[in-house]
Amino acid sequence: MRTHYCGELRAEHIGETVTLCGWVDRRRDHGGVIFLDLRDRTGIVQIVSDPVRTPDSYAQAERLRNEYVVQFTGRVSQRPEESLNSRLPTGEVEIYADKIELLNQVYKQLPFQVATAESEPVREDLRLKYRYLDLRRDRMANNLQLRHQVVKTIRRYLEDTENFIEVETPILTKSTPEGARDYLVPSRVNPSEWFALPQSPQLFKQLLMVSGFDRYYQIARCFRDEDLRADRQPEFTQLDMEMSFMSQEEIIKLNEGLVCHIFKTIKGIDLPRPFPRLTYAEAMERYGSDKPDTRFGLELVNVSDLVKDSGFKVFSSTVASGGVVKVLPIPGGNDAISNVRIKPGGDLFKEASEAGAKGLAYIRVRDNGEIDTIGAIKDNLTEEQKQELLRRTGAKAGHLLLFGAGDSNMVNKTLDRLRLVVGRELGLIDPEKINILWVTDFPMFEWNADEKRLEALHHPFTAPHPEDVHDLKTARAQAYDLIFNGYEIGGGSRRIYQREVQEQVFEAIGLSQEQAYNKFGFLLEAFEYGTPPHGGIAYGLDRLVMLLAGEESIRDVIAFPKTQQARCLLTNAPSGVDEKQLKELQVASTYKPKSTEKGK
Amino acid sequence: MRTHYCGELRAEHIGETVTLCGWVDRRRDHGGVIFLDLRDRTGIVQIVSDPVRTPDSYAQAERLRNEYVVQFTGRVSQRPEESLNSRLPTGEVEIYADKIELLNQVYKQLPFQVATAESEPVREDLRLKYRYLDLRRDRMANNLQLRHQVVKTIRRYLEDTENFIEVETPILTKSTPEGARDYLVPSRVNPSEWFALPQSPQLFKQLLMVSGFDRYYQIARCFRDEDLRADRQPEFTQLDMEMSFMSQEEIIKLNEGLVCHIFKTIKGIDLPRPFPRLTYAEAMERYGSDKPDTRFGLELVNVSDLVKDSGFKVFSSTVASGGVVKVLPIPGGNDAISNVRIKPGGDLFKEASEAGAKGLAYIRVRDNGEIDTIGAIKDNLTEEQKQELLRRTGAKAGHLLLFGAGDSNMVNKTLDRLRLVVGRELGLIDPEKINILWVTDFPMFEWNADEKRLEALHHPFTAPHPEDVHDLKTARAQAYDLIFNGYEIGGGSRRIYQREVQEQVFEAIGLSQEQAYNKFGFLLEAFEYGTPPHGGIAYGLDRLVMLLAGEESIRDVIAFPKTQQARCLLTNAPSGVDEKQLKELQVASTYKPKSTEKGK
Repeated sequence: MRTHYCGELRAEHIGETVTLCGWVDRRRDHGGVIFLDLRDRTGIVQIVSDPVRTPDSYAQAERLRNEYVVQFTGRVSQRPEESLNSRLPTGEVEIYADKIELLNQVYKQLPFQVATAESEPVREDLRLKYRYLDLRRDRMANNLQLRHQVVKTIRRYLEDTENFIEVETPILTKSTPEGARDYLVPSRVNPSEWFALPQSPQLFKQLLMVSGFDRYYQIARCFRDEDLRADRQPEFTQLDMEMSFMSQEEIIKLNEGLVCHIFKTIKGIDLPRPFPRLTYAEAMERYGSDKPDTRFGLELVNVSDLVKDSGFKVFSSTVASGGVVKVLPIPGGNDAISNVRIKPGGDLFKEASEAGAKGLAYIRVRDNGEIDTIGAIKDNLTEEQKQELLRRTGAKAGHLLLFGAGDSNMVNKTLDRLRLVVGRELGLIDPEKINILWVTDFPMFEWNADEKRLEALHHPFTAPHPEDVHDLKTARAQAYDLIFNGYEIGGGSRRIYQREVQEQVFEAIGLSQEQAYNKFGFLLEAFEYGTPPHGGIAYGLDRLVMLLAGEESIRDVIAFPKTQQARCLLTNAPSGVDEKQLKELQVASTYKPKSTEKGK
Repeated sequence: MRTHYCGELRAEHIGETVTLCGWVDRRRDHGGVIFLDLRDRTGIVQIVSDPVRTPDSYAQAERLRNEYVVQFTGRVSQRPEESLNSRLPTGEVEIYADKIELLNQVYKQLPFQVATAESEPVREDLRLKYRYLDLRRDRMANNLQLRHQVVKTIRRYLEDTENFIEVETPILTKSTPEGARDYLVPSRVNPSEWFALPQSPQLFKQLLMVSGFDRYYQIARCFRDEDLRADRQPEFTQLDMEMSFMSQEEIIKLNEGLVCHIFKTIKGIDLPRPFPRLTYAEAMERYGSDKPDTRFGLELVNVSDLVKDSGFKVFSSTVASGGVVKVLPIPGGNDAISNVRIKPGGDLFKEASEAGAKGLAYIRVRDNGEIDTIGAIKDNLTEEQKQELLRRTGAKAGHLLLFGAGDSNMVNKTLDRLRLVVGRELGLIDPEKINILWVTDFPMFEWNADEKRLEALHHPFTAPHPEDVHDLKTARAQAYDLIFNGYEIGGGSRRIYQREVQEQVFEAIGLSQEQAYNKFGFLLEAFEYGTPPHGGIAYGLDRLVMLLAGEESIRDVIAFPKTQQARCLLTNAPSGVDEKQLKELQVASTYKPKSTEKGK
């Protein structure tokens, strides 16, 4: 139905007769001459119609409006000098519209203008409801194109350079909730039984290693029924990989090759290799986070030993009861941050208290190393302690020192939040900078205080560090996360491949033998038939693309995302279904709307 | 952990020291010399250990058994003349095992031997339960490799040659059952509402056309909760494509390019282009099927006009009441097929009656054109009619003519089945032959006698043939199926892109305006905002790979398939779930086991 795409027309086509199809992006009527920007996926070209040069099409051209779908046939012509447009790749030419075929039109008022949506922001709920119009916009079309390029780049690198095989694993599988909730699917053929949608292809990729596939990857859809945060979706996509007979170092090296290739291909950037690494312990100590944004300093300083005998009871008793005292030193913080913000009611206080802190002790460093703080602190620091504090924190005149004291998790969480807020506020983060690093040596487990049991920090298939196998409960794991400007974009581990170790880990997280066998019996059994050492990694593809696109929400890099209420505004899913469908499945909703209960 | 893969070692490596990892495929003890076939994903290589040449490893080698996981380090050596193995790519070399590291072993009796499973067939339920062992076998590993190659070939052709973009569409979407049953997923956040798993990305790909993406593809997981037949799975994979601004001819041409490229790349075969075509009407008339296997003749002949005035009432009254009489002429059928097989109790009678036929009239053609049949037929054919019958069916001495009489659907179904059975039996089907053709011009609708309403033959988004829009109920559709040796491997259509046409089709299939709006309102609305003409196609990827692999079940080209009872024997999904999970989702099973009911 066409001979060319709009965006490919150049001076070399002048004189040719072409047929184009697309949408009217804008229409301008310059006193008897109609100019139309015709848009297709490749770009925009200018169409001209007037009664003299295109007498047959003029009447039709007059009727066209924005977003009408049109087929044009016409002559490619040189634009007059004064209307050359160097910002447009097709800006040297225009098409005299000899023939216009109106293919479809717009019958209702557009909920928003496509062409101007960049400059006039549109409410997100409207964008999601009319997603098919939202995706016509440059920004969104470019985001999906970028996503396609990223996936294509990944596939080809893994297939051509690293000899991976892609294998599809099931979407209808077994419920083995660990961590997040499963989405469930009732089985009609086996009533009262349920499939679950996979939270990841973890077990299947491990079984593929047992099968000898050696290097597996998949761009895999995963599902978690979580209460949604800003950058989560009920379904998301991960680049899933697994490899046999490779050490942790070999796996890391291979993945650095992949990530460098992505950045080179997509952004033209050569990332330096090897990537920097922090152990989990270092990352927590220096940044209070296992996904530190290392584009700026503001590193935390542990002063527990310094204040453990201090007369300031808040500090000394914290240390005595096993807690920590850490400092976030802020150069120039004296000027930038007022007391009001640190005290109850202030924004920084609020950040801290959301992380669990009861308050925020602080010291302001004045000229000549004088310190300015409440008496209870000042009076209880010896001159030596003061000097040591200034030395360790590198504090000079103008520095503000913010203190966290308490349980180390809480202190780290507090100071991590404050560090990010302050770093952003003080303009310490260079948005052009790309910092990618590994965090390694995670602990196997963390304590789940609600359920009073150990919980796998990554997942229960993670192998312990060989030096630590004598005590699994305190062991480090052979686990590694890849961090990109403070976002975790990938996480992986070497896996357990011996039945007895796997059973010990299940025991450690409080699974009875019976529970372990019911859920993971097939995996335990597979370990008895010749399972190779193996390990892998998974990348959050949505988040990676979001970062590469410079977007702030993964919804902007997903074609048809759901809202934070897990709803599709376009199709209105989820929705009620026919009673007949539920009857066939032999399931029912037990939901009682609140209003009905009241009515009783 | 290794320097080479097993399968890549050649004479040029002789003298090198290599480290290999893999599984012991077979182990032979030749009186003090142990030979081990080491297997990895690339192939097999022979390892040698004996007390003289490899004193350090011999004790370890003695302990190895089949399917143990091992790391070997050793010297690549020339095999002695008498043990060269030309059938093995590595058959010129063997490795002296200087060092053996046992990485993992087999702790239980293997449910079946991996290395010999080709020659000693294994029960399918065992293969599915121990799928990770089944996938170690050459045949299954090759099938999954082939699948990967097919997908890779498709992706690259569409991306590089045809400029398609891949877009991921949702798995959690809205229930719009048309035809098959949906799998449903209860929503926790929106209780009493349900997501459905998509039967295909149909609506989303059409919306992507509304967005201007122009050429979309996806290797898409689809779900249908059907009662399973031999070659169906609850979840299956389709190559899904959609294009804007293309005529049916353009779409067909593009797809012929794709299919030819697949056959050339995967099988080295140049398919002749353009592919042959049959209209639906022709296919039904000549083969009784809309997916004819054209590798052999045995075409049907319609003799309704010839017998409509015959004195044989079965024929004449059939035609009078709007039915048809058709013949399956079988050359050599007189010798090959006895009367017993055609009469009640016979296998051909059974085939016919399963298709709905009450009986099978037949004529045997003897020398000199004499015919041999029951008197009621013979006595009621004039000499002219007989001659015309022989002429039309091309019948000669030795021919058997089988008759179908009745409703045309039933007659076609009957004779199609008989044609395939007889064609196979008489060896008329060349298994090496590849016949690919298009069937076009399907009717828009077929009559659903159970529900007493018209039903869309493809789906209700299929556009009518422009010549037939005056009467949608009898219209042909702009639909096309791709047939490969009697299997439908692809099916597509141009789509409706105008609201009023779409509404007429919904009305024709008996959807009220309200139902149509509830289910498809977003599509109808999208048609109002500038929808381009578009069309597409979907290929059954599992089936295509099955045919390319020469397998007879799609289960053999899916890594982790389900049984015909929609169950995964490996993970035992579906399964019961924790009451807590159902409570959170506010759903319950209403299933009452039969035994419980009895007990009441």
